[in-house]
Amino acid sequence: MKNSIGNNITMTIFGESHGPCVGVTLDGLPSGFKIDLDFLYDDMEKRRAVGLISTQRHEEDHPEIVSGFFNGYTTGTPLTLLIANKDQHSKDYEKIKGRLRPGHADYTAFERYNGYQDYRGGGHFSGRLTACMVAAGNICKQILMAKGVQIGSHMEQLYNLKDIPFSSDINVLNEQIQQVNQMKFAVLDAAMEEPMKEAALQAQKEGDSIGGILETAITGYPAGIGDPIFGALESTLTQILYSIPAVKGVSFGLGFGFANLKGSQANDPFYFDGQIRTTTNNNAGINGGISNGMPILIHTCVKPTSSIYKVQNSVDYSTKQNVKLQIVGRHDPCIIHRARIVVDNMLSFGLLDAWMSKAALTPFEGEQYES
Amino acid sequence: MKNSIGNNITMTIFGESHGPCVGVTLDGLPSGFKIDLDFLYDDMEKRRAVGLISTQRHEEDHPEIVSGFFNGYTTGTPLTLLIANKDQHSKDYEKIKGRLRPGHADYTAFERYNGYQDYRGGGHFSGRLTACMVAAGNICKQILMAKGVQIGSHMEQLYNLKDIPFSSDINVLNEQIQQVNQMKFAVLDAAMEEPMKEAALQAQKEGDSIGGILETAITGYPAGIGDPIFGALESTLTQILYSIPAVKGVSFGLGFGFANLKGSQANDPFYFDGQIRTTTNNNAGINGGISNGMPILIHTCVKPTSSIYKVQNSVDYSTKQNVKLQIVGRHDPCIIHRARIVVDNMLSFGLLDAWMSKAALTPFEGEQYES
Amino acid sequence: MKNSIGNNITMTIFGESHGPCVGVTLDGLPSGFKIDLDFLYDDMEKRRAVGLISTQRHEEDHPEIVSGFFNGYTTGTPLTLLIANKDQHSKDYEKIKGRLRPGHADYTAFERYNGYQDYRGGGHFSGRLTACMVAAGNICKQILMAKGVQIGSHMEQLYNLKDIPFSSDINVLNEQIQQVNQMKFAVLDAAMEEPMKEAALQAQKEGDSIGGILETAITGYPAGIGDPIFGALESTLTQILYSIPAVKGVSFGLGFGFANLKGSQANDPFYFDGQIRTTTNNNAGINGGISNGMPILIHTCVKPTSSIYKVQNSVDYSTKQNVKLQIVGRHDPCIIHRARIVVDNMLSFGLLDAWMSKAALTPFEGEQYES
Amino acid sequence: MKNSIGNNITMTIFGESHGPCVGVTLDGLPSGFKIDLDFLYDDMEKRRAVGLISTQRHEEDHPEIVSGFFNGYTTGTPLTLLIANKDQHSKDYEKIKGRLRPGHADYTAFERYNGYQDYRGGGHFSGRLTACMVAAGNICKQILMAKGVQIGSHMEQLYNLKDIPFSSDINVLNEQIQQVNQMKFAVLDAAMEEPMKEAALQAQKEGDSIGGILETAITGYPAGIGDPIFGALESTLTQILYSIPAVKGVSFGLGFGFANLKGSQANDPFYFDGQIRTTTNNNAGINGGISNGMPILIHTCVKPTSSIYKVQNSVDYSTKQNVKLQIVGRHDPCIIHRARIVVDNMLSFGLLDAWMSKAALTPFEGEQYES
Repeated sequence: MKNSIGNNITMTIFGESHGPCVGVTLDGLPSGFKIDLDFLYDDMEKRRAVGLISTQRHEEDHPEIVSGFFNGYTTGTPLTLLIANKDQHSKDYEKIKGRLRPGHADYTAFERYNGYQDYRGGGHFSGRLTACMVAAGNICKQILMAKGVQIGSHMEQLYNLKDIPFSSDINVLNEQIQQVNQMKFAVLDAAMEEPMKEAALQAQKEGDSIGGILETAITGYPAGIGDPIFGALESTLTQILYSIPAVKGVSFGLGFGFANLKGSQANDPFYFDGQIRTTTNNNAGINGGISNGMPILIHTCVKPTSSIYKVQNSVDYSTKQNVKLQIVGRHDPCIIHRARIVVDNMLSFGLLDAWMSKAALTPFEGEQYES
Repeated sequence: MKNSIGNNITMTIFGESHGPCVGVTLDGLPSGFKIDLDFLYDDMEKRRAVGLISTQRHEEDHPEIVSGFFNGYTTGTPLTLLIANKDQHSKDYEKIKGRLRPGHADYTAFERYNGYQDYRGGGHFSGRLTACMVAAGNICKQILMAKGVQIGSHMEQLYNLKDIPFSSDINVLNEQIQQVNQMKFAVLDAAMEEPMKEAALQAQKEGDSIGGILETAITGYPAGIGDPIFGALESTLTQILYSIPAVKGVSFGLGFGFANLKGSQANDPFYFDGQIRTTTNNNAGINGGISNGMPILIHTCVKPTSSIYKVQNSVDYSTKQNVKLQIVGRHDPCIIHRARIVVDNMLSFGLLDAWMSKAALTPFEGEQYES
Repeated sequence: MKNSIGNNITMTIFGESHGPCVGVTLDGLPSGFKIDLDFLYDDMEKRRAVGLISTQRHEEDHPEIVSGFFNGYTTGTPLTLLIANKDQHSKDYEKIKGRLRPGHADYTAFERYNGYQDYRGGGHFSGRLTACMVAAGNICKQILMAKGVQIGSHMEQLYNLKDIPFSSDINVLNEQIQQVNQMKFAVLDAAMEEPMKEAALQAQKEGDSIGGILETAITGYPAGIGDPIFGALESTLTQILYSIPAVKGVSFGLGFGFANLKGSQANDPFYFDGQIRTTTNNNAGINGGISNGMPILIHTCVKPTSSIYKVQNSVDYSTKQNVKLQIVGRHDPCIIHRARIVVDNMLSFGLLDAWMSKAALTPFEGEQYES
Repeated sequence: MKNSIGNNITMTIFGESHGPCVGVTLDGLPSGFKIDLDFLYDDMEKRRAVGLISTQRHEEDHPEIVSGFFNGYTTGTPLTLLIANKDQHSKDYEKIKGRLRPGHADYTAFERYNGYQDYRGGGHFSGRLTACMVAAGNICKQILMAKGVQIGSHMEQLYNLKDIPFSSDINVLNEQIQQVNQMKFAVLDAAMEEPMKEAALQAQKEGDSIGGILETAITGYPAGIGDPIFGALESTLTQILYSIPAVKGVSFGLGFGFANLKGSQANDPFYFDGQIRTTTNNNAGINGGISNGMPILIHTCVKPTSSIYKVQNSVDYSTKQNVKLQIVGRHDPCIIHRARIVVDNMLSFGLLDAWMSKAALTPFEGEQYES
């Protein structure tokens, strides 16, 4: 699999933090979809999150679409987006080449690539690559939205500060999704915005960083999508989420909370009121790996940013000496407020791909050969 | 992807609970590996868990290897294991065909398969299919063990009862893995065995069920395996774990606990004592999607068994009437004590496949064409 | 890829000539398709070709469908067919274990599997595996036929004897396809049947074998299916055809005959008479890798059966001695009359999979997100 | 599969003839391979074939490597090459948008992409995309060459003119490969160069085009690579070759000539002279889908260039009117002299990928778990 993912629609990501550009190819898009570039740029800005608690890196991340896009529409052939790297400071990284930053992929990259990796700014492991995810995923999200799907995330937790959870009322939930999608700093409880930003700035002052938990909701996704066993919707989506740097936990619905319940509490009873629904939604819209039409709810834990200013113990890979390491250069005290759009858009990719797998079967279902 | 998974070694699962057999094909095995059939059968028994808190279904799950196995060794061609279904009571299920069992895939199967699914005993969604996972995964586990890898799981939590966690001392941990692998009921704290069994039996008396959390440890897995982004080891392993029925949460290392820490606490500092290690192991042996040689630690939440005896509200899919549903037939009050061997063996498959991807590159690395 | 192929629908083949069975799993079938078992058995008989110029191996190849099939219909979950090996004479092969049969995979299997391969009767390389191809492909063919597609092959050449080619008149062609599909020995020119059989028997008398060329025609396949570059219909279909043992040449339309033409002769001019067609069909219904609605025409060369009775020079792999080899046991003087149904059915698999890829896109094409 | 191919190493191609660039991503390259850029550029020139019988399009096809390449070496992360489109004349194509060029993908693109395709200069179907194939394949070829593999092609036939075939003597063959790789116009019989060029110029004068047949030889490729059935080396390589525009026939060794032989003539007898070889090589180095260490020999038929100046009958897709079509703009009277480097380099990709699949298994073969 490596840097490609997907079945009917595939995403391939390439590039390094300090190369000329990063890029992404989407293959298998439907033709004739009109891309809203403003909406795309808007999501790119949500990832940059300038003026919140940002790094000092100031690229204007306007992707250039170099293929698969003609007169404003998708052509159906592979669509490649390039995002230029304009604001690199390569010299910052040269001196720490062999000095392994704790929490980062520096050491494992040495082991995996035998020292030939582009080590500057994390290279191919840089968070910079998530710009590709946001861009490509945005196009998938636009397609889902055209079919009536909504998706949005908020920071349910930032360090020890908690936002209110998404509502179990579908109408309220749909409003909440719209609400968070219009916010730069996505919290449902407006009163939490300032304390959360404050916590981030405080961590920054300490030369430290903080993480948190995102809650994502998807509504309007039809029932009957996904496959049993390896094609389970949870398998598809979680594989995608763990490809986002710093993600260390993913759960669906009650997630680890299921451990404390009995089956009679955990099961979601069905009822019929014109369509089949469940009274609770502990299983988060997925039974047996297949969507049931209820909202899909996902929790994603994003660990604290690995790059901190505090002095850390480490090793120099080249000399095999224990060293004291202090990372210089720019870095965020937290990234979760930026990660939420990465999560939304990558999930959109996975949800679109799964839907396509069901669509592939539709013309052939219930057919019969008459001998 | 559907019912196949893997890159260099692939696993394909087929069968239904009440068909003649379930089965699994492993393609891409190395040739000349001597399979220890006793060890295979032993794992099959661990999944059956007869005499603990089991169902009344009493197949002797001795897989028949019908291909890819010759004179005791793998041939290297596709190895298929068939496991006969001997003890079905199909009549039990006939009458509840359209009656959707909460927490199960009954409803989503109707939506996905338009009513043509084999609904008997959950059909292709049955926990019976995990017998295939155990069998195929066991062979992968044997290969890993031949290379010095150890893997084992224990029930860190069953309902509200908690076992002690795995040790952070590698020597103790290796002993603990051996210990749990010799146990039918895998708990580290022997004093927890009776209370946990009691809790399961109590749930059974109530016509209810309970779930829990598994902690899995892998040692001896080399550094440098995995790929960035979509081939991240977490992506590969979590996709596999979510293909196991009833799994609703998967996390690595501190998992959701990362949200409460600062970067300076979360990062694992490196040190050198003949080889590069980390003083803590919060990131569970994986940085940037690639193994770092430290133990890999995973938490998997298994929800309470969906089949309970208590009367539940539901809908009859055929009549679209709200109904009261009482499930009859045999079912476990908990499955986590059986799930642990499924988890171990499926992870073994994923770890072997990832290792093969690295091995594929090895002969070509650092080569150079001389013009 | 190994022993699985396909994108939306996948085929996985397992088994050896002298194991208990060979088998095949189709994953990704539409649900609710009623399988005509008589038609399936009929194709199995076409492959056996008993009473023509057959081997002495007399299995009644009635596949057992062990999964994915319920009450006469596909369920949509993986469908596995097992075909028992009843009539093996394993002792025949024991004594020639290390003696490499020219034209066979004996030597390459040693190199590939390090001597652990099941060498009896060719093992996994046996023509026996084509029974799986016929069975699984037949189901795909039934689905295509329900959508109005016709497919059939005839022996355009057997050794130095030539049949007449398929007609360029679509109506005649459709009749010819029906005609050859009702024949056990598929030739368009009835006068060629006896000479061809005679040639095969003559080769048999000489302890030798002969090969030939199949011409396959597909009609009713819609325009617009296939993908540019690696998903070209020719790429998909030819990959499949070369997976059939003994195939050494595959061409489309004029094939190698294109070399002798000028562009003005080779191009197929378009015209419109209610729909867009071409006046000639040199390109065999495929332009740029995508179907254009005209008949798809394929030539497949099947080499002479490698197993012959004549004494051949060879090497014993174990002793590394040059040896004189005489193959005993049963074998066909030709297989092309049996191969034609393998070709038809495997092509059906490929054509169905390609069609599904287009169907996957259909619900999303021309949609638009309104911001 | 669409525009990606490969298992351990994958190639993804994107771009259109008249977009800003075409490009290709290789994922799964070994790290630390020093790329000889001069050799890469040299192959790019072979494809351009300026000064022979070329078009008037004069891009200097120096690919820019934007990722996966650092300090002269592969990093092991995805390597992307971009090739700028500098010399487009988009206006030439505007007026013939709906007018379907016979032999081209214009009509099928309409059916496949619903009219949204970039129709300028063939768009994604343009031969321009083969520049990506040459560039990416060249890197794979360099890796193979570092391991002692040689690969080269010559024009065995151009229209009705025939070159001498490759020698069956391995030493002579290796010299011939070196010889053709140093030639701009690859013929073994130097006396054929002028008549062949003359035939191409004559076709050009007539406003017409010609095709031909390439013979490709690969030496030094080890025995034991490839898989049975769907992973057969022929399947892998032929799928790749048919992804090259204008290829309509592919055969191995004697190819369609097998039809005229008896088994005793077609089989290649083995002998031992320090290593196991065959006295003849009719099967072209492949038995049962797996390499046997003998030279691999492939014939590929490239049809006459579809673009000709002669007036052709066609249809306007928009108006559904029959029209007389005269194609203006630049085009080659033949492309086979340029196609040969595409064939060589794409085969190199396939051969490297297949080799990696075997390498993936090597560390695990013959291992044994001691219980």
